[in-house]
Amino acid sequence: MSAGFSVQARCGEARAGVLQTNHGPVETPVFMPVGTQATVKSLASGDLEALGVQIVLANTYHLAMRPGAGLVRDLGGLHTFMAWPRAILTDSGGYQVFSHKGRRKIDDDGVTFHSHVDGSAQRLTPESAMAIQADLGSDIAMAFDECPASDASPEVLVRAMERTTRWARRCVGSTPATGQLRFGIVQGGTDLALRREHLDAIAEMPFDGMALGGLSVGEPPETMHAVVREVGPRMPEARPRYLMGVGTPADLLVAIASGIDMFDCVMPTRAARNGRLFVRGGHLNIANAVHCTDPLPIEEGCACEACRRYSRAYLAHLFRVKEILYYRLATLHNLEHYLSLVRGARQAIVEGRLPAYVESRLATAT
Amino acid sequence: MSAGFSVQARCGEARAGVLQTNHGPVETPVFMPVGTQATVKSLASGDLEALGVQIVLANTYHLAMRPGAGLVRDLGGLHTFMAWPRAILTDSGGYQVFSHKGRRKIDDDGVTFHSHVDGSAQRLTPESAMAIQADLGSDIAMAFDECPASDASPEVLVRAMERTTRWARRCVGSTPATGQLRFGIVQGGTDLALRREHLDAIAEMPFDGMALGGLSVGEPPETMHAVVREVGPRMPEARPRYLMGVGTPADLLVAIASGIDMFDCVMPTRAARNGRLFVRGGHLNIANAVHCTDPLPIEEGCACEACRRYSRAYLAHLFRVKEILYYRLATLHNLEHYLSLVRGARQAIVEGRLPAYVESRLATAT
Repeated sequence: MSAGFSVQARCGEARAGVLQTNHGPVETPVFMPVGTQATVKSLASGDLEALGVQIVLANTYHLAMRPGAGLVRDLGGLHTFMAWPRAILTDSGGYQVFSHKGRRKIDDDGVTFHSHVDGSAQRLTPESAMAIQADLGSDIAMAFDECPASDASPEVLVRAMERTTRWARRCVGSTPATGQLRFGIVQGGTDLALRREHLDAIAEMPFDGMALGGLSVGEPPETMHAVVREVGPRMPEARPRYLMGVGTPADLLVAIASGIDMFDCVMPTRAARNGRLFVRGGHLNIANAVHCTDPLPIEEGCACEACRRYSRAYLAHLFRVKEILYYRLATLHNLEHYLSLVRGARQAIVEGRLPAYVESRLATAT
Repeated sequence: MSAGFSVQARCGEARAGVLQTNHGPVETPVFMPVGTQATVKSLASGDLEALGVQIVLANTYHLAMRPGAGLVRDLGGLHTFMAWPRAILTDSGGYQVFSHKGRRKIDDDGVTFHSHVDGSAQRLTPESAMAIQADLGSDIAMAFDECPASDASPEVLVRAMERTTRWARRCVGSTPATGQLRFGIVQGGTDLALRREHLDAIAEMPFDGMALGGLSVGEPPETMHAVVREVGPRMPEARPRYLMGVGTPADLLVAIASGIDMFDCVMPTRAARNGRLFVRGGHLNIANAVHCTDPLPIEEGCACEACRRYSRAYLAHLFRVKEILYYRLATLHNLEHYLSLVRGARQAIVEGRLPAYVESRLATAT
């Protein structure tokens, strides 16, 4: 089912694995930077290579709106378009469409919504979402799911879950791009029984990987952790496990210890642009006046370009005067923080010392 | 007077030289990218090194407003602050202050103006402008001059010229940072007689270099070229000659052939951000729909990161969706275009074939 995934080491529930893709191996656990519009904001593909990124996420909805999936296909696919030689995972567009509350109409066949670009009416179905992802030529395509709000009633949760199951069947029935892997998505909100039920329903379909969707959508972190601790270890052993849209450094450690292999989140990149820079022990806000005179780097010993070369004072200046360079340096730093956190976890799994690693990083992580 | 400058080759009026600075040699003719706020917009200092940039310009006025010259001094000077190991030229702040029309009051002692940041009253005098530049620790400090508008009356022109002469004396009387070179500025508008007169007045002072100010401020290019052709060859042989704020690729070639050694201009960087990308034969506007489907690079054979790795279609997409990466790639390209144009001119001077080089590039330059 997923001949391309192998687990190389285990430590408790955690696993260190390798996922083979059309564009090279992805060592798991892995953090996937988000490149919504075919660029991880402020970074070039060469920057991502230098950071050691093995896989990025791109957003089907945004790329379908601009520049259009057909154009990307005609230009040789997303890898060629964004000059990225390593792996790409595309979401299905569902999450983006469902987060436009009140601007979309859902039925059993699919979703009608309005483009955020020009207001034009658009429609996504399981088949069209998979076809767009085939056009983009991503290495991993996500099933088209319905993602309910965190405060949805049990009835809404169940309805969304059942619809997601029906849609998942249509997704696995579609034709992927050559060598494209497909992941199914488990819904069920924060109800553990629903989550287990939906996991079983999705797991029986021939997806190459399994994802947990509908988390980190507003519920308290402890609630999300409880779902991950309960569901993570029950996900099929032989397939990669992906926790969508999560999260803080602490969230990642909890989930890795619960057997999750893959993550994506806008947090490191978006927080960077807003002035929040991750360091061991938490974060600093570069907008604070105290940094304006500080000759030290963001974090001593960090391998990123910002820390190797620049002071907090310089970054604080760039941030205050809104210089473009700030965004790049801050993004490089926060991604390095996330990537090295997860690489460290992988190494700890291989060496059988994940609990100590998690403890040492949790003690200081936000 | 300028022991640090030597001319290595001549071709007609043109010269190939080397200017020794506190932070390494600068091979002339040279184009200096503009780093107004201690960053060439969108680029890191490592990017500039990779482009082969030997000297950048920073703006005294902007840095004095934010983050403040005293802070930069306390942090080890501008080179340390922006992590730039090569040469820096600072303007005097005069041009920026005088371009805030109606918001400044000028007298013989200096200029009172309002900060563009917070509206606070500020004052610059020849002494304070040089002191700020000493604090910044630039390799080349510019004299504080009065730059009249291009349509100024002859009386205003003469008054500004005479005041600039008096201020220049005060500038050479100030104490520079250790090893800091100081350049005088020749005014006189587009009146050739006034220009020659003012050149003589400034040339007799012990400046390490000589600049032409007050050009490219709205006059027709042919008028500016006439001044440069007339005045350039008359500037002191032994000192570097700097044409401030100029210009298009064609302007640079005309001026190099007239014996100018140094240039700065926001054109390549600003034009890049506005979608105008320089190519042999002119430029392209990346906003044009025709580029959206074009798999070719901006310019075949260009050594910049944008051309080595990305298509016009990708850049057109990034520009349309206002992605930060666009600004960096476009800036890298336009700077590479300018830098290689001027490096080519230097090589042509050394090889005694500048006229042919100018002709071949003028035929296709904008």
